[in-house]
Amino acid sequence: MKRPPDSALLTDLYQLTMLQAYYEQDMQDTAVFEFFVRKLPRQRNFLVAAGLEQVLDYLETLHFTAEELDWLNSCGRFSSDFVDWLAGFRFRGEVRAMAEGRVFFADEPILQVIAPLPQAQLVESRLINILNFQTLIASKSVRARLAAPDALLVDFGMRRAHGGEAALLAARASYLAGFDGSATVLAGALYSIPLFGTMAHSFVLAHDEELLAFEHFAQAQPDNVVLLIDTYDTEAAATRLQELAPRLARRGIRIKGVRLDSGDLAEHARRVRRILDQAGLSEVTIFASGNLDEYALQRLRADGAPIDGFGLGTRLDTSADAPSLDCAYKLEEYAGRPRRKRSEGKATWPGRKQLWRHRDESGLLCGDTLGLATEEHPGEALLRPVMRDGRRLAAAEPLSDIRARLRQELERLPETLLRLEPQPAYPVEISPALRRLAAELDAATH
Amino acid sequence: MKRPPDSALLTDLYQLTMLQAYYEQDMQDTAVFEFFVRKLPRQRNFLVAAGLEQVLDYLETLHFTAEELDWLNSCGRFSSDFVDWLAGFRFRGEVRAMAEGRVFFADEPILQVIAPLPQAQLVESRLINILNFQTLIASKSVRARLAAPDALLVDFGMRRAHGGEAALLAARASYLAGFDGSATVLAGALYSIPLFGTMAHSFVLAHDEELLAFEHFAQAQPDNVVLLIDTYDTEAAATRLQELAPRLARRGIRIKGVRLDSGDLAEHARRVRRILDQAGLSEVTIFASGNLDEYALQRLRADGAPIDGFGLGTRLDTSADAPSLDCAYKLEEYAGRPRRKRSEGKATWPGRKQLWRHRDESGLLCGDTLGLATEEHPGEALLRPVMRDGRRLAAAEPLSDIRARLRQELERLPETLLRLEPQPAYPVEISPALRRLAAELDAATH
Repeated sequence: MKRPPDSALLTDLYQLTMLQAYYEQDMQDTAVFEFFVRKLPRQRNFLVAAGLEQVLDYLETLHFTAEELDWLNSCGRFSSDFVDWLAGFRFRGEVRAMAEGRVFFADEPILQVIAPLPQAQLVESRLINILNFQTLIASKSVRARLAAPDALLVDFGMRRAHGGEAALLAARASYLAGFDGSATVLAGALYSIPLFGTMAHSFVLAHDEELLAFEHFAQAQPDNVVLLIDTYDTEAAATRLQELAPRLARRGIRIKGVRLDSGDLAEHARRVRRILDQAGLSEVTIFASGNLDEYALQRLRADGAPIDGFGLGTRLDTSADAPSLDCAYKLEEYAGRPRRKRSEGKATWPGRKQLWRHRDESGLLCGDTLGLATEEHPGEALLRPVMRDGRRLAAAEPLSDIRARLRQELERLPETLLRLEPQPAYPVEISPALRRLAAELDAATH
Repeated sequence: MKRPPDSALLTDLYQLTMLQAYYEQDMQDTAVFEFFVRKLPRQRNFLVAAGLEQVLDYLETLHFTAEELDWLNSCGRFSSDFVDWLAGFRFRGEVRAMAEGRVFFADEPILQVIAPLPQAQLVESRLINILNFQTLIASKSVRARLAAPDALLVDFGMRRAHGGEAALLAARASYLAGFDGSATVLAGALYSIPLFGTMAHSFVLAHDEELLAFEHFAQAQPDNVVLLIDTYDTEAAATRLQELAPRLARRGIRIKGVRLDSGDLAEHARRVRRILDQAGLSEVTIFASGNLDEYALQRLRADGAPIDGFGLGTRLDTSADAPSLDCAYKLEEYAGRPRRKRSEGKATWPGRKQLWRHRDESGLLCGDTLGLATEEHPGEALLRPVMRDGRRLAAAEPLSDIRARLRQELERLPETLLRLEPQPAYPVEISPALRRLAAELDAATH
């Protein structure tokens, strides 16, 4: 049996039971689904679109293997006619999307799927699974970048990310949001994300002498000598580098940095900086890790801690202060007719939509308009075609392009939204035509 | 390139750089690492061990493919001698572990790896990645089961789980912790976990008439007719079942249940129950979903809401109130000598350990003892050999056995620990010999 992320069975049961009903009723007309976030987490002033690339991969390759079809036949829930039909199932629809690295706000669709109903339906679970997570992590990561614009920022979160795919995709999402790289090797191998790493406490503990551990590490990684100095006594270890540095220098090896991973990081950093400077090691940088997030970075910066780089792990890769987005993938149109869910607190804007972004005379973003795709509005239309007949319209975008797009987007965001603290919402106007359509549907249903 | 979860590159860079140093220094002596949780989340009175099965899978199959070795050679960080050595790398060590489904507490190792240092080191990142997540979800899930002992509980979290593997493993962890099943199809196919599912709002919206949607669904899934009734007006939909039920009954189809997914669930459930009962549909069950967790279940139960089953999604699969464990995998012994990290706030108990669990005269758990593996204590020793020479000692345990073990464990836990509210910690005694060893090491180092 294929494993995630490649299995067509990585979906919710109800997608398949609904598909059987669509199959039996021959409901194959065109459906339009949109993915959007209903409400931003309180601690986010904007979100960063991410994950489109993996969605397109998924849509392009989605099919049921013989083994999966056998299982579906054997599980006793589906007719063999339906399972036979699934054998030929492919996604052949159209996708419009906001480019990765764009910022977006509540109620704004970042992805629109236009396909025969069964195709657009089946993909819901995995599509949300991909977009929710990467957008979550990109939106958290960018805040760390805003808190420490010039620091080296590295994703250290693999071990406490929720499973292997989360670790890999968190490395991607944090990198596209402005991190310098990740410690996760596979992210380097698959996505060419720059890799960073130092040493673990176990490395120091496995040696009888801390200094010997440093020396062995330096020999093995002469171009990347970052030494973890808090296993026993941080300042004592820093002091002993005075002895180690010249010894290594004679072999042409330079100590690049030290890492602090416990205690009062600001206080240790100040003391270690002093010790290093007095030893003539002012080029040795200080790197810190240990339960860090954007709030900690902001405090350390405000406190003037002489820290050059940060490793962010658990809190980044789990988006600890907001571990999910209130997002949805909703049917907005079927067989040419707009549709509207009205469940309490979960009502949606109906119809096939488009989103326009406006800038003021100085070039700053000053509001978006959400309207029907058939409308015309000034501003930049943000949903662009990315897939037609189940094939992507362009090759995968380099992560460097996505990074550059986000940097540019941030330069144009109103300054208040760049703060970590909650701010009044960015204005998203609902077009009069869209409001009218919603009211008409409400009046017409039942 | 292989994808997670199967790639040997799914690790932190520093594991490989440390390995190169171990290789160069020929540090291949036996190391003992232990995985434990430093501190329980405030909202957990106990944790449930989970994930061992996937750890053993990983250790048994771990190796570098030709493609991975090529990448390591090309990335410019490693010597070709070292990469050649990695070609033959396998895990051939020993593992002792607490069985899945046992409860455990702070500082208690649930897994011990005894292997040549490079083998025990490299696996750290993925091993934590697996154990942290499944233990997290099992420990959250069991609380939902405690809050609603007799309700049908289903994992609905795939879409907002952090990636595909998290979705799959959350289904496994919640099932072993007492859930009745999951909506994630792949979990049914891979782990034989019972599957549950109803229909989505899109199914209702794709039909021009709600009742027609219900009828089509019932025809397609005659044995599993659970109807989502909140798309437009919950009570109106419930009322119309009076008309639908006899029509379906004539075709031998029974409405099994309805699902509520929005609004005040207790209030809607009461009204819907009344409507159904008055229509002679008292056997139709009520299933609820929508932002549920153990606290919501407790409130709904206290409120007397007539709800028979619950779908738990986002908050369960992200363990939203505690999205990570403060866990570690630490070197406790190398080359026959115990080791102790002393970093501030992160000091560990050194040496190769064992854990004994005590019961009082009535059979209730009354405390654990953490001591050295060489000690003898009364009570049940919880770390048992599960792997030798890199081969598991027994076949994968059926999930039903793990479920039964946890049920038995819960019957023996002091009643206070079964409450959702924070309680005083369960007593874990550190043996005098272990305390002595820690003090000796502190005195000896530096």
